[in-house]
Amino acid sequence: MALLTGSLPRIPLPQPAGTGTRYQEPPAVVALGGGHGLSASLAALRLLTTELTAVVTVADDGGSSGRLRRELGVLPPGDLRMALAALCDDTEWGRTWRDVMQHRFKSAEHSEGSLDNHAVGNLLIVTLWELLGNPVAGLQWAGALLGARGQVLPMATVPLTIEGDVLTETPDGRLRTETVTGQSKLAAVGKDCHVNDVRLIPADAPACGEALEAIELADWVILGPGSWYTSVLPHLMLPQLRDALCRTTARRVLTMNLATDTKETSGMSAADHLAVIQRYAPEMRFDYVLADPGAVEDRGRFEQAAGRLGAQAVFGKVGTLGGLPVHDPLRLAAAYHDIFGGSAEHAHA
Amino acid sequence: MALLTGSLPRIPLPQPAGTGTRYQEPPAVVALGGGHGLSASLAALRLLTTELTAVVTVADDGGSSGRLRRELGVLPPGDLRMALAALCDDTEWGRTWRDVMQHRFKSAEHSEGSLDNHAVGNLLIVTLWELLGNPVAGLQWAGALLGARGQVLPMATVPLTIEGDVLTETPDGRLRTETVTGQSKLAAVGKDCHVNDVRLIPADAPACGEALEAIELADWVILGPGSWYTSVLPHLMLPQLRDALCRTTARRVLTMNLATDTKETSGMSAADHLAVIQRYAPEMRFDYVLADPGAVEDRGRFEQAAGRLGAQAVFGKVGTLGGLPVHDPLRLAAAYHDIFGGSAEHAHA
Repeated sequence: MALLTGSLPRIPLPQPAGTGTRYQEPPAVVALGGGHGLSASLAALRLLTTELTAVVTVADDGGSSGRLRRELGVLPPGDLRMALAALCDDTEWGRTWRDVMQHRFKSAEHSEGSLDNHAVGNLLIVTLWELLGNPVAGLQWAGALLGARGQVLPMATVPLTIEGDVLTETPDGRLRTETVTGQSKLAAVGKDCHVNDVRLIPADAPACGEALEAIELADWVILGPGSWYTSVLPHLMLPQLRDALCRTTARRVLTMNLATDTKETSGMSAADHLAVIQRYAPEMRFDYVLADPGAVEDRGRFEQAAGRLGAQAVFGKVGTLGGLPVHDPLRLAAAYHDIFGGSAEHAHA
Repeated sequence: MALLTGSLPRIPLPQPAGTGTRYQEPPAVVALGGGHGLSASLAALRLLTTELTAVVTVADDGGSSGRLRRELGVLPPGDLRMALAALCDDTEWGRTWRDVMQHRFKSAEHSEGSLDNHAVGNLLIVTLWELLGNPVAGLQWAGALLGARGQVLPMATVPLTIEGDVLTETPDGRLRTETVTGQSKLAAVGKDCHVNDVRLIPADAPACGEALEAIELADWVILGPGSWYTSVLPHLMLPQLRDALCRTTARRVLTMNLATDTKETSGMSAADHLAVIQRYAPEMRFDYVLADPGAVEDRGRFEQAAGRLGAQAVFGKVGTLGGLPVHDPLRLAAAYHDIFGGSAEHAHA
């Protein structure tokens, strides 16, 4: 199994006598999420630790992942692939195999070509699953190919479906409730819709055992950023995973999105986002809520909402310089560095 | 580039003084062919040398390779993939990635699933080609993934088409000539048909430069076994490749098939196979023609036909024990070992 870890054995280094220098163990960090938000989180956290575990949603039903899930009955691989890609070794080897995994075929003849739009890494991960018969082992091999700086785990060992009740205003001004099934549809409800109630199917799916263990042994647990209802909230809706997150002795950070008013969170403020977390996991407590000051309209309300989660609100400029609502890995890493080091109060913007 | 070779640097080892022991360089061997025949050849030759180059036909137009060729305009990858798989490192790492490359998806829903029957390695090789823009570099990376014991090269840098004139007897007893285009159709002409004339399109395609160089520098060149018209003969029909095979100072071995009476060689004896070679490449000379005694009906005629190619006929039991017309890697390796060592005359069965 030494082959699969991709890391050198931990040999205690002799310490220089009398200098007082202490070599610290890297903190064990678990990052939970899905999609681009989780990739941003991992791109930052890989700069801070080698003891990194990504726990990834498995409810995607759109695109390449959705087709593989339907055709082959496997976990949707796309978000797992993106997390692996974010952790690839920073060498020609790691970057080349990352590019292979992220590559998508564009067929010339669309009639024949349902290769069209399949990410090659999705096919590679599904192949490893079919050969090894074990989702976690398959992801370890894909990680070994990339020389990944950490491990990537699915949140559950069976594919999940997200379903939500969506409120829509009818032309005559009345509210109508509609059930929307599937992550891809729910993430794309219109601007005038309001996601009112979200649930996982099956409601009591088995969480991934290795993910529960990583959470139990973590020093830090980071939830978010990501699509609030479809990448962040699912981790708090799976009973075994929510319990592990509540029980762990790790300190917990909730990282806010840079854009609050998205299709699935139409009209919601940053404080409203925190209220959603509290509603679905009332027993869950956080130590810190990290937000970009530009994404918080009302600091007072936001700090109060954070307080109701047991958390200190921490503000830091973590968006890219260009102004796009995308987290900058270095800025996000700097913010986590301050939080991990206990000097988060100095990170105020 | 050290990354890509997968081999340790050649450091001249100090030799024990006075023992007279000489450490021999492994022979540089080039094996030409395609499909299962070439795989068998490589499975044998990898036991004899680390300096191994496979030169592979690129005229396949059937199955997964044919679809990728048509949809994406690339070389057909299937025979190249099989050659790489035959050279994989004999470790858990090498065997696992070989199994990934050889894996084919079987979709549950055939309506949606044109992943059906694509070998994953074909998709991986094509991805590397699309990313790197260079067929040879892409194959080097695929070989590095497998820890391949040698290199795999395409015979030409553009896809080739094989076309043949096929003689068929009409119900009234007359002979009719029909042109059959494409390797997959030509390899499957019926038992009562006779392939009369074969050509490559384009006729003067550029050979792979690295293949020409490997042939020039080789100690041994091995042609066959394999489908005679579609995997063996093409190497002698591409002008640059035929010239290199004629010019090289390497010794040349032609390895016969175990089954002579196949769909594309209906009614042909082993000696007839040699006559075909002479007809298409009259200037080509061989040093040895290796045949299983069970596949040669008339030794006298066969030895005469070999003599017309300048070759000594060598007979060895090289088929599997089970009697299937499949070469056994160890028996074939033993036969090549005798030939390379100059004791081929002792290999008579």
